Amino acid sequence: MPKLLILSRQAEEYQHLLESADLPEIQIFPATEVVKAKALDPDFEIVFGEPRLMREVLPGLPRLRWVQSMYAGVEHLLDPALRRDYMLTNARGVFGTLMSEYVFGYLLNHERRIFERRQAQQEHRWDGSTTGMLRGKTIGLLGVGSIGAHLARTADFFEMTVRGYTRSSESCPAVDVYFHGGRLLDFANGLDYLVSVLPNTSGTRHIVDAALLEALPPRAVFVNVGRGSALDESALIHALETKRIAAAVLDVFEQEPLPKDHPFWEAPNLLMTFHTSAPSLTADIAGLFIENYRLYLNRKELLHRVDFGRGY
Amino acid sequence: MPKLLILSRQAEEYQHLLESADLPEIQIFPATEVVKAKALDPDFEIVFGEPRLMREVLPGLPRLRWVQSMYAGVEHLLDPALRRDYMLTNARGVFGTLMSEYVFGYLLNHERRIFERRQAQQEHRWDGSTTGMLRGKTIGLLGVGSIGAHLARTADFFEMTVRGYTRSSESCPAVDVYFHGGRLLDFANGLDYLVSVLPNTSGTRHIVDAALLEALPPRAVFVNVGRGSALDESALIHALETKRIAAAVLDVFEQEPLPKDHPFWEAPNLLMTFHTSAPSLTADIAGLFIENYRLYLNRKELLHRVDFGRGY
Repeated sequence: MPKLLILSRQAEEYQHLLESADLPEIQIFPATEVVKAKALDPDFEIVFGEPRLMREVLPGLPRLRWVQSMYAGVEHLLDPALRRDYMLTNARGVFGTLMSEYVFGYLLNHERRIFERRQAQQEHRWDGSTTGMLRGKTIGLLGVGSIGAHLARTADFFEMTVRGYTRSSESCPAVDVYFHGGRLLDFANGLDYLVSVLPNTSGTRHIVDAALLEALPPRAVFVNVGRGSALDESALIHALETKRIAAAVLDVFEQEPLPKDHPFWEAPNLLMTFHTSAPSLTADIAGLFIENYRLYLNRKELLHRVDFGRGY
Repeated sequence: MPKLLILSRQAEEYQHLLESADLPEIQIFPATEVVKAKALDPDFEIVFGEPRLMREVLPGLPRLRWVQSMYAGVEHLLDPALRRDYMLTNARGVFGTLMSEYVFGYLLNHERRIFERRQAQQEHRWDGSTTGMLRGKTIGLLGVGSIGAHLARTADFFEMTVRGYTRSSESCPAVDVYFHGGRLLDFANGLDYLVSVLPNTSGTRHIVDAALLEALPPRAVFVNVGRGSALDESALIHALETKRIAAAVLDVFEQEPLPKDHPFWEAPNLLMTFHTSAPSLTADIAGLFIENYRLYLNRKELLHRVDFGRGY
């Protein structure tokens, strides 16, 4: 009978969701904080939780076999100094719809000039000028995993041209053209929108740098919904201040929360949100765990396994 | 050899587009204004133009057989006092993508609280609160013609539930439930979003009235991209001021441009645009004409024929 530790600020909600699923054999222990988890039974075979919290607890669990992260990003567990003698699975396949709503919400906000229209309204000014549109534009996706593939399908729905930059995979049919390796600047050339969904790995650090931003046309909008480490933040500030690109939308940052004195707060044509683009919805994430737990019991291969070396 | 009058502020652009298509037999005469059109040959068999301008010219054309409107709305030609001895076709099937961009841009703006996020940014405040989403919400479409059907497909793409209110047709598979006739309040009950794409006809006047707005839940957002006449404007102001509904987005009005002293300018939770939701793109509209002209030459039935009695 596997013992499960749920370690999350929403542990009770997750406990309720898992109990409603009538999972066979399992014993569930919820904890909302690291200290509470440490005070519990150390014989946990499975941990389901938030990476930042789990990191503190994993060293003390001799019978650990499987860790299911509630988030997509598992950097906190990938430090080479940490144990790697268990199966790590992350949350995947559940963020696509929310990410599409976020990214296309902001792209449409840009094209339809929603701020300017409201300004006209506040000035009691009938502004009949026409606006831009997504149809016919070209979007470039840095990373085409499950989130990138959903963004590609949404772009395709809006009749856009879709480019994908990946390490090697070419598995999403909604991508019109793939680019790899040294072809990053070719990928960027002529894009209307550049969207990074890259995770935080050694290979993605500062991939969006001055050279990549220079390769974009001045009308381009950059969106980062992956990890802040993919962006050279100074290069973006320079690109915005010199109007090398038209605008940027950032949900993630190298340091979060963003420091009070960070130049992003005042940068021109930059819209920020605060790591809210695709919250982990408890019902979605519990569903992932339940699906994986059934595979686990049957000794089948788990879904969304993270490769410690590759980093995702 | 049919003589064609193009009557539009963009007549020269249309002339260029039609000439590039190498249409057989046609003789093209462009005019950007009514007076210029009247000074031309009266032997026009076909007129392709803006309804408001064409209205002034049609009485003087003895050989008139076909009028292709550049717009979807043809109210200007439907006055019973005007001639009806010709085939009237309007622009249809080309506005769906733009209308979807508009409607879903504004719905996402509402759900993602884009104005509030920018406010937080301006206050240098890290606002990590989560936002709403379209997924799982219910949208009600007043009118499911070609635009409504495109909105339905977009809502379906975003995993929403779609209700359609129509006179009788049930032809769009992306609509989950249809309502007709006296079931208008059942249709409205529980909607998250109510979107009117209705044309201006006697049957649609003030269909969005106090009773319909009362039937919506307080979280509902009303969007009008059809015609201003479908809305009882006073009832909407009351619903917004008393928070009977959460917000409204209006692109069309009973009087356009909106009078300077209209209460909409200051109404709470109302966003206005200015009849810009789906501009007639010259390439799209020229394409419609070209397709219809080939049918016309071959004496086939024209596409997008308007029924003078029904009004659309």
